[in-house]
Order: sequence, then structure tokens, then C-alpha cells
Amino acid sequence: MDIERIGNYMAPFVFDLDVTTGVMKGFKNHIERRASSMRGYYADEAALESIIAGGDPILYEVFECTVPELYGHLTVGISKLYPGTVGQECFMTKGHYHQVIETGEVYLCLGGSGYLLMKTKDGDFSALPMERGKVVYVPPSWAHRSVNCGNVPLVSFFVYNAESGHNYGDIETEGFIKRVFKRDGSVVIE
Amino acid sequence: MDIERIGNYMAPFVFDLDVTTGVMKGFKNHIERRASSMRGYYADEAALESIIAGGDPILYEVFECTVPELYGHLTVGISKLYPGTVGQECFMTKGHYHQVIETGEVYLCLGGSGYLLMKTKDGDFSALPMERGKVVYVPPSWAHRSVNCGNVPLVSFFVYNAESGHNYGDIETEGFIKRVFKRDGSVVIE
Repeated sequence: MDIERIGNYMAPFVFDLDVTTGVMKGFKNHIERRASSMRGYYADEAALESIIAGGDPILYEVFECTVPELYGHLTVGISKLYPGTVGQECFMTKGHYHQVIETGEVYLCLGGSGYLLMKTKDGDFSALPMERGKVVYVPPSWAHRSVNCGNVPLVSFFVYNAESGHNYGDIETEGFIKRVFKRDGSVVIE
Repeated sequence: MDIERIGNYMAPFVFDLDVTTGVMKGFKNHIERRASSMRGYYADEAALESIIAGGDPILYEVFECTVPELYGHLTVGISKLYPGTVGQECFMTKGHYHQVIETGEVYLCLGGSGYLLMKTKDGDFSALPMERGKVVYVPPSWAHRSVNCGNVPLVSFFVYNAESGHNYGDIETEGFIKRVFKRDGSVVIE
């Protein structure tokens, strides 16, 4: 979907989202994160290498519309995080702060089950449940990471300020305070 | 839902949305628009007065979360526009520009059918379809109004910059270029 214009303005546009499956039509940006892109994130490095050696599957995907990355615009899209574990640690996204750290984000979960983990630069931590119909508000300053604790993809519709940008680097060095595991069939955050 | 804090930051929060019915739990702000609040908007003034005299029903409702009306925050909520006509003109919302006119908005329709009408200060016009699963992007500078052309409530999840504000006055004086009618069972935009 390219950006079209009407007169002096960006044209409104519409796209289709399957609110049951989260399949989004008309997206322009597609990010695939394979296991090999997640080195350094999981506690069990050997288990991750085994997954990479076994075919390096896609662990999550992000689909976004194209809007100008400028104040006043909103980026909308779908996050699809597949189910599974690295060792006993649940599949998760990299997680990021916004580069413009004073911008927040909204998630509407459409399917699956898990958590949105959030943390601040001061070491505050929050884990809120994600399942169909949960709307999670990520206030400004909170880094955020999705974790899939279920057996089907965790699918979320998200909206954030288009100028926000992504800061992954700080999470790579800081980590995320807590990790989510499946141990003997139970989900534990520790 | 009051705004809570964790350390030096606003706390993340979660609320439940029924993605089938659009029923939102935990909202703080509730706007009800009765027929009597819509004087001056519909072409058939006598028909509107008759509806007001007949009990002044609620024509639409808006449910919103409470977040600071500051840059970086996003206001999320549900718009519920009931079905019906004033004379032959389909029920609609007042419509507004944002006071901070350079901010956009995102609508995700969860149920019903109709249009999102949009217009600019230059007289540009756009009408995009609203039905379950349609995501409409309202770029900066476009006034927007929902119109219900169906027989059930038109329910939409929306997100906009919390600092946007609402400018209803300009629509009261400018109108919206086109109106939507049901004539002999057909929907016409004219």
C-alpha cells in the first residue's frame, strides 16, 4: 500500500484485518524474526542453537502499514508470535524501548495467550496478561516485550506514534528483569 | 480506572474488550449523544424534532480510557453508533477535526456496517467502508464522522493521540460536504 494523496493531503485508506485470525491484508512492511536473530536473548543458548540448526524457523512476524514516520501519524499493524519454547523459556519478541521514549503504545490481543512484559530504565517491572480481547496500555517510558505461553500464535493489533522509532540495543544489554518459563506444564515468571 | 503509578512512571494497565460485541470494561469516560444534542446536523429538522419528542433516545455512545492528555499518550476507546434514520438520513456522529489538526486517528471496526466520512479544510472528501475487520486510517488534517447504514450498532475501536482534542465547532458551521441516506432500501451518498 503506497501513500496516496488527495489534494494537498495524504489520502485516508482502509485495509482488512481478520479479527479472528489476525491476518492483515494490504500491509507493506513485513518483519520476520528467525531463531538465529535471537542469539543472546534466551537463557538456554544451547537450546537456541539446536533450534537454529534444526531449520532456523521464524519465531515471530510483524506486519505494518506504511505511514510517514512523523508526528501526528500512527503506525498500525499485527504482531504474530508463534508458540514454543527455547529450553523451557517461552518464545518472546526482542522487546524495545521507543527511541522517542516519551511515546506509548496500545496492544489489542486478538488470539493466543501470554504476557506483555514491561520495564523502565529505573528497573520497574510489569507483566500484564494477553489473551483475546485484552487491551494493554503501554505508557510512555516502558520497554515492552510479548511472550507466548500458549499453544497457538499470540496475535495482537498494535498502534503507536509513527515517529516513535525502536531502541532494541538497550534491551540487549539490560535484559528484561524477568523471564517466562513453562515448567512441568505451569507458566512461571522469575 | 484511575491512573496509577509505579515508581516514577505511570503504571501500565489492561482492560477487557469483547471483540465481538465491542463491550468495553473498565472505561472511565462515557459520552452519550441523544437526539436533542444533534440539532442542526440533519437535513430533516422536523424528523429530528419528532424523534426528540418521542423520547429523545441515545443515538451514539463513546467509551474511553483515562490517560493524560499529553504528548506520547494514546486515547483508546469504543464508539457505538446505533442504527436508524432521521427522515431518510442515516444516524451519524457529529464529526470533528482534531484541535491539534496535524494528528490522525485509527479505527478498527468490530461490527455493523456504514462509512467513515472524512473531509479537509480545502473541501476534499473521502468515504471509506466500515464493517467488521476494516481498519480505516484517518491521516492528519481530516475531519471524520461515522455513519451507520445497517440494522445493528456500528461498533469501532479507536486510537488517537491523547493531546489531539476535538474541534466540533468547525463542522457545525462547515457541514460535511456529503450526506448519507437510505432511499428505497439503497444507501446513497449525496
